[in-house]
Parts: sequence; C-alpha cells; structure tokens
Amino acid sequence: MTATFPAVAAAIRSTLEGQGFTKLIGAEVVSVEPGVVVMALDRRPELLQQNGLFHGGVIAYLIDNATTAAAGTMIDRGQRTVITAEYKINLVAPSTGDHLTCRAEVVKPGRMLTVVEAKVYCRTDGHEKLVAVALATIANLDMKTPGA
Amino acid sequence: MTATFPAVAAAIRSTLEGQGFTKLIGAEVVSVEPGVVVMALDRRPELLQQNGLFHGGVIAYLIDNATTAAAGTMIDRGQRTVITAEYKINLVAPSTGDHLTCRAEVVKPGRMLTVVEAKVYCRTDGHEKLVAVALATIANLDMKTPGA
Amino acid sequence: MTATFPAVAAAIRSTLEGQGFTKLIGAEVVSVEPGVVVMALDRRPELLQQNGLFHGGVIAYLIDNATTAAAGTMIDRGQRTVITAEYKINLVAPSTGDHLTCRAEVVKPGRMLTVVEAKVYCRTDGHEKLVAVALATIANLDMKTPGA
Amino acid sequence: MTATFPAVAAAIRSTLEGQGFTKLIGAEVVSVEPGVVVMALDRRPELLQQNGLFHGGVIAYLIDNATTAAAGTMIDRGQRTVITAEYKINLVAPSTGDHLTCRAEVVKPGRMLTVVEAKVYCRTDGHEKLVAVALATIANLDMKTPGA
Repeated sequence: MTATFPAVAAAIRSTLEGQGFTKLIGAEVVSVEPGVVVMALDRRPELLQQNGLFHGGVIAYLIDNATTAAAGTMIDRGQRTVITAEYKINLVAPSTGDHLTCRAEVVKPGRMLTVVEAKVYCRTDGHEKLVAVALATIANLDMKTPGA
Repeated sequence: MTATFPAVAAAIRSTLEGQGFTKLIGAEVVSVEPGVVVMALDRRPELLQQNGLFHGGVIAYLIDNATTAAAGTMIDRGQRTVITAEYKINLVAPSTGDHLTCRAEVVKPGRMLTVVEAKVYCRTDGHEKLVAVALATIANLDMKTPGA
Repeated sequence: MTATFPAVAAAIRSTLEGQGFTKLIGAEVVSVEPGVVVMALDRRPELLQQNGLFHGGVIAYLIDNATTAAAGTMIDRGQRTVITAEYKINLVAPSTGDHLTCRAEVVKPGRMLTVVEAKVYCRTDGHEKLVAVALATIANLDMKTPGA
Repeated sequence: MTATFPAVAAAIRSTLEGQGFTKLIGAEVVSVEPGVVVMALDRRPELLQQNGLFHGGVIAYLIDNATTAAAGTMIDRGQRTVITAEYKINLVAPSTGDHLTCRAEVVKPGRMLTVVEAKVYCRTDGHEKLVAVALATIANLDMKTPGA
C-alpha cells in the first residue's frame, strides 16, 4: 500500500529536521507539496561570513536539502530513495537581510534522475530579494540496490 | 607596496577562520599557497545528514570557502577583493569516514573571473577517498567599486 | 544617444544570424525582447547523434547563443559587450521530435555578471516537450577593456 | 564474452565519427583509452562566432561527445549504454587559434553515474592554450530498460 501524501510529507519533514546539521544550522521545513519543498532559516552570527552576509555554505545547505526533498516527493518511498548527484549554484546578490527562504521545484521527474530548480530569497527591509539560483540533479535509487 | 605572500596567506587564513560559520562548523585552514588552498574538518554528529554521512552542505561549505580563497591568492589584495559567483558540485561517493579535506586549485586566473577546481576527500579507515568534485567561478572586484 | 530597443534587437539578431556556425546549423532568431531571446531550428540528419536524436552539441549551441543574447539585451551596447562565462546544461528527455526551440530569460542582471536561465523544447507530434534546462553566467565587459 | 578493449575503442570511435553532427562539424576522434577520450577539430569559418573565435557550441559539442565516450569506455557495452545527463562548461579564454583539442577523463566511475572532467585546448601560434574546462555527469543505462 502506498502512503498518502500527507504521510509522505510528514516523513520528509521529519527526516530533514532530524539531521544533525539541520539542527546545528537551525533551519525549518516551511512546506512540503508534491514536487515543491520550501525551507527557511533566520540570521544568526554563526551563519555569516566575514562581511556579515549569510555564508554561501548556508545557502548551499538549503539548496542541497530542499532540492533533494522535492525530488523525494515524486518517488514511491517504500521502494526507492533519493540522493543528491550534483548541483550548480549562482550567488546573484549579497544576502544582507535577516531571513533566508529556499524554494525548490521539480522541473522534470524521471525514473532514474530528477531535475530540480531552486531559488533562494533573503528578506531585507521587509521585501524578498533573490540571492541565489540553482539547478540540481537528484538520483533515485532502488532500496534493494546494495551499492551506488 | 604589495604584501609578501606569507602576509597574504596569513590574512586569508585569518579571514576564513574568523567567519562565524567556520567557527560553527569547526573547520580549519590546512594550507594557503599561491593558487591552492586546503581546508579540513572532523566528523561530529552535528555535521551529518540522516544516514550518518557528512551533509552535502558541509561539503559545499568547504568548496565555497576553499575555491574563493584560492582565487584570492592571485589578486592584489590592496586593490581588489574576491566573491563567489557560482559553483557546481558533484557528490561522487558517500562520505562515511571521519575527516574531510578539500583541496581547491586555480585552473585559470583572470582579470575579472578566476576559475577554480576542487576535490573533496573523506578519510575512511586510514585512506583518502574522493567524495566530491567541483568547478567554481570567482569574481574579482575593484575595492572602489560600490555595487556588484 | 542610446539606441532604441528595436534597433538593439535588430543588431542582436543580425549578429547571431551572421555567425558562421549559426549558418552551418541553420538556426533562426525567433524573437528578441528585453531580457528574453528565443532561437529555434529544424531537424536535419546533420544535426543528429547516432540514435536519431538532436545532438547535445546542437542543444548547447542554442543555449550558448540565446543566453548570451538575452544578457546582451540588458547592457548599453555602445559602451559594453557580453561574453559567455559558463553554463550548465541538464538534458532531461530525448529530443526525438522535428523542431527545437530555446527560450532564454535573464534571472538577474548585474553590472558585471548577468545570470540567465534557459529551457529547450522539442516539438514532437505537435506538442512541445521539455528536453533541456540550463543556467548560465554571462560577463559584461567594458569595450575599452583590452583583455578579459 | 566481453569485447577486448581495442574492439570497444573501435566501436566508440565508429559511433562518434558516424554521427551526422560530427560529420557536419568535421571532428575526429584522436584516441580512446580506458577512461580517457580525446577529440579534435580544425578551424573553419563555419565553426566560428562573430569575432572569429570558435563558437561556444563547437566547444560544447566536443565536451558532450568526449565526456560521454570516456564514460562509455568503463561499461560493459553488451549490457549497458551511456547517455549525457548534464555538464557544466567554463569558457576561460578566447579560442583564437587554428585547432581545438578536447581531453575528457573519468574522475569517478559508478554503477549508475560516471563523473568526467574535460579540458579544451586551442592551438595558437604553435602552443596549446586552455580555453575551456568542464565537469560532466553521464548516466549508465541497462539496455533492457525500456524508458529512462
């Protein structure tokens, strides 16, 4: 029997929020819909680089997790699992604001590979500014597959 | 007067190690040579994802910092500064070991853009296994330039 | 005096259609609007790979030209010029159809770098199927700049 | 019975050189070794862009073919086949010379995905200048798999 989507969404949220690194960073899963996952986090000094901007690694963390989770909404989770194969990030503006949001959306689901786009926005003086754009390839693995 | 390379290397090391996010992650700068920067960190539960592997965001953090710093070794730091424009990461094997090392090396320095390759290794049972490969573009900005 | 946009669009179209490689491939510029360029070409045996699909290099040609041209609509062409810095292409489905269309759209214009997304569609049995997605970085150069 | 490597290399060479687009461009396969493929082509006006440089699409053609073929040297060709999943290209210098050579080398072979690096050199006044760097992901498919 296949899980209902709310159960799938709850499992994905639980997996992401249970990661040690997610707890260290203090990110939250805002929403999980079929093909779309949104994650966010607040500014803290521990998440910044030397000029007071969010560190590129923090932005990459959001993109890595949100794109992989978005791909994970498209698979039969009893049979298969997802892993990040690769992604490209463009940092397009300095993230000077107080809150980062990453929205990842599946562009093309596939049997073996799912392609996902992501955009990261930084809330600055009350408006959302685009700070990063990404394109990711997520691999779908059979659970029974021993090696990758 | 242009700084000697040891002074440049010390300044780069100090900038990287002073970042809030570097302290949170607990990374260290292993070496800074002309065109080559090596960074590393040790396994801690707070740096992992749900299967006990280093989180992709941790690997991206190393790549982001080491590639940008490697490009930064090639500029006149009194006149110019570097920012990460974009990078692509391939995660090529699970990072099951206890120590990550990222080696970033400039492939092509440029007046405006510097292209840098990086490889990330995970020490597993005493040997270094390649876990990620990256290709980055770093922008060189004039200090006097107000906006980017 | 700055050129009107129709004059800019005509100049971009003329540049693209005058390229030796554009003539060899037989591509056409469908439209040039501020921030958006569309190019297209028809199936011919000389544009295919061994399985009768459009060659990935043909798809890359469209992406290279359309993304750079889209960035070129955002600059003052009397003062500056654009060059392709880098791009990433995901080939997401086999291009079995008879006509390829590439739509490139600026995501973030910048003083120095412009980021552009592109999607390529293949018309198959009368409907447009997404076959490739790309993310490109285009550099804006001052005309007076001798080297890059 | 598995084919000997010389037979594999001959089959790869024949596939590449038989492509309609390879004939149109006039490229040749210089060498096929385990994990490494080299392709090349000569300057002709039909391969150039508006400033007399090799067109980025020509460079992408070489990278697409050579990286996929390099991955193809690592599989059992009786059972499996390779397709290009994605690649990223950095154009690092203008290709003003008379001959392009692309060398693609497998960085990490995998059961499902193979990661390949490529460098493109342009022979200018008798010496080879690096003009492009790429990082590619190639998918390995079972022949029996009906869809991708």
